[in-house]
Amino acid sequence: MKQKTSPKILVAVDGSEYSRRAFQYACMIALNKELPLQIVNVIEEHATVGYSIIRELENSSKQILLKFQTRAKLLGVRSVSTTGSKGNPAEEILKIANSENIDTLVVGSRGRYATKDILLGSTSYKLVHYSKCTVIVVR
Amino acid sequence: MKQKTSPKILVAVDGSEYSRRAFQYACMIALNKELPLQIVNVIEEHATVGYSIIRELENSSKQILLKFQTRAKLLGVRSVSTTGSKGNPAEEILKIANSENIDTLVVGSRGRYATKDILLGSTSYKLVHYSKCTVIVVR
Repeated sequence: MKQKTSPKILVAVDGSEYSRRAFQYACMIALNKELPLQIVNVIEEHATVGYSIIRELENSSKQILLKFQTRAKLLGVRSVSTTGSKGNPAEEILKIANSENIDTLVVGSRGRYATKDILLGSTSYKLVHYSKCTVIVVR
Repeated sequence: MKQKTSPKILVAVDGSEYSRRAFQYACMIALNKELPLQIVNVIEEHATVGYSIIRELENSSKQILLKFQTRAKLLGVRSVSTTGSKGNPAEEILKIANSENIDTLVVGSRGRYATKDILLGSTSYKLVHYSKCTVIVVR
């Protein structure tokens, strides 16, 4: 069954310098291809983290998404949506990338997840390996 | 020591549909960033292949590079250079990507090298992992 939604550019962001560069690249592609931009931030789930910390992480995630959404609009991207998610970053990003009509997925080469994921294979590797769409790993 | 050459977009091509899409993407980036485009084709080395076959592969490589160079110029990319190379595709592409001032490296997700490289890890994985510049894996 063909997807009926129009294609989008998907960018994964966190608070890192790498994701700021990924965001810039994603905006350039969205403007050039005249496509909507979807911005996603994934909160990593830690079983040991208490309720108050989770609330703090959720607030921080919302602020990050709002900041990037505002910037994208200022750069001239017409349609900008945001998605907050919880879980494993690579898995959550892939869920969106493979279930929606994503033209290009843009990620930074090393986000906040790098330290943990080095043992398992980096987030960007998983995205390149399992994504069905074009992937840009920004350095 | 800082590199003095101006940054370039590097695209790896072969005769596959994947590399045609990678080439289109690379031209879009080169035009958008107003950067020169460098097109590379790598002939895989096979010890058992005779001299006449090597000559044929070399001629085919030259034709592929010339075809893409002409197309890039027709699309409006101002500065287009080509490089023919022999050896392991990932290694040869990385040599160029890491020794020259490459802004973005663009490759197709599966080129002619896919079958062989699946055993060792795909060419695109190696490029994403070892490249120091932004990498686009086009699907």
